[in-house]
Amino acid sequence: MAQAARATIGNSEFDRDTAVTLREEGVFDAELSTGWTILGAVNGGYLLAMIGRALGDALPHPDPFSVSAHYLTASVPGPAVIRTEVVRAGRTLATGQASLVQYEADGTEVERLRVLATFGDLATLSDEVRTTAVPPRLPPVERCLGPADGPAAIPGDSAITERLDIRLDPATVGWAVGVPSGKGEVRGWFGLADGRDADPYSLLLTVDALPPTSFDLGLKGWTPTVELTAHVRCRPAPGPLRVSITTRNLAGGYLEEDADVWDSADRLVAQSRQLARAPRG
Amino acid sequence: MAQAARATIGNSEFDRDTAVTLREEGVFDAELSTGWTILGAVNGGYLLAMIGRALGDALPHPDPFSVSAHYLTASVPGPAVIRTEVVRAGRTLATGQASLVQYEADGTEVERLRVLATFGDLATLSDEVRTTAVPPRLPPVERCLGPADGPAAIPGDSAITERLDIRLDPATVGWAVGVPSGKGEVRGWFGLADGRDADPYSLLLTVDALPPTSFDLGLKGWTPTVELTAHVRCRPAPGPLRVSITTRNLAGGYLEEDADVWDSADRLVAQSRQLARAPRG
Repeated sequence: MAQAARATIGNSEFDRDTAVTLREEGVFDAELSTGWTILGAVNGGYLLAMIGRALGDALPHPDPFSVSAHYLTASVPGPAVIRTEVVRAGRTLATGQASLVQYEADGTEVERLRVLATFGDLATLSDEVRTTAVPPRLPPVERCLGPADGPAAIPGDSAITERLDIRLDPATVGWAVGVPSGKGEVRGWFGLADGRDADPYSLLLTVDALPPTSFDLGLKGWTPTVELTAHVRCRPAPGPLRVSITTRNLAGGYLEEDADVWDSADRLVAQSRQLARAPRG
Repeated sequence: MAQAARATIGNSEFDRDTAVTLREEGVFDAELSTGWTILGAVNGGYLLAMIGRALGDALPHPDPFSVSAHYLTASVPGPAVIRTEVVRAGRTLATGQASLVQYEADGTEVERLRVLATFGDLATLSDEVRTTAVPPRLPPVERCLGPADGPAAIPGDSAITERLDIRLDPATVGWAVGVPSGKGEVRGWFGLADGRDADPYSLLLTVDALPPTSFDLGLKGWTPTVELTAHVRCRPAPGPLRVSITTRNLAGGYLEEDADVWDSADRLVAQSRQLARAPRG
């Protein structure tokens, strides 16, 4: 995908759409963009990135080391308010809490998600790496499949797909043509469509951006996140990311979904796990 | 281990030591027991179980589906206060927040951990199980190794080891004799020493009760938890549990540790992931 002008960190649609404006100490105004929705629902990773930016502003350390979000009600495009609290500000780590709320037409406040997060400074960490996990083996990006290569994963309006450059391993997209593997794994290349490189905030989007593993398990429909916790472990190198998501425990109408995100330097830069409600289909 | 009288759920040391007393709406008094300490530090899973009980009392649904804890400062045996807040009470799920605080000699309040949790009712879930994960293969319990079979994993006073009946797979205890495998995996049988069976609250203890994977990676010393999120997926059947903990990403002075807990009916009853600071050793 040739880009007219490659966007950069700080000057991209993602940066503009996750911006928060300080209203008073600890309280931020935000605008949930229609650009990051699937069937009208605002993507949970996008919300996490926005809350990450608010907490990054409120806390004395810059990077989200661990972010735990409990999703309460479905967010809708439009204005939102993020209230933050500094729970503890330590020398190397700081913990904060955030709440994102929206307002109904009659003024009723509705909380969308509540977040606890511990921030630190990735730049201060040692260079020692003893990772035993291995990156997912993916075919070259030109042999992987994007939204233009087949039927829509989710029929209907999915604005977010225009903003992401996701190319899935053909071995994990059988569900798109009615032949799910049943393994509960989806993997592929990930980038932002405007060419903006990844940073710790965009990684919070990345962990919740692929089509859900439930599709690969033969289930159709919405897989709402109950809780998602993401660990950002390293500042990502420029270039495309590789993402794998897996589910090992679909039971009782719920499933876990684990995401591993690898950068172009073969570092495991982010890990996440979410608990989601399985579609009934 | 023959037990004089087998303890039961509701009538056991674990139940007594995790009890919380309602002081006023949403606020509970608690006593952190010396019985669940390692080298004077109170075990994080024990704290999680205690907070789980407070939230179970405060919320309209009984079982912890997902509990996210951010650990702020090291708890010490003695009095504590747990403040809870009902964030959202829905028909099938309810989300709450809790904070555990202790007081210094001069009366200064110090927060120990902050928790977000979503509760539901495990008894209402469907019986459908499509778990692809497989239980850890363990030798029979009589061929696994307990604290009496070798040198102490952590020299010094570890009261918690007297209250747990953990028998580790010999293949994962090389570190106890100076030969860590380097794989980052520890697995074994788990029970409470007094024979009390597991329930959703005790599973919150179980996910953080084994010797840390850092020992198997050849690191010695304390591995303090930054954040731990546990999912309880099924009410455990009576009988011993099997637990495996694994680390795949030791880098930059931090590591993740994933726990899987299986019951005697071969159900994956709990999953957890924590972010911890790696020992310097």
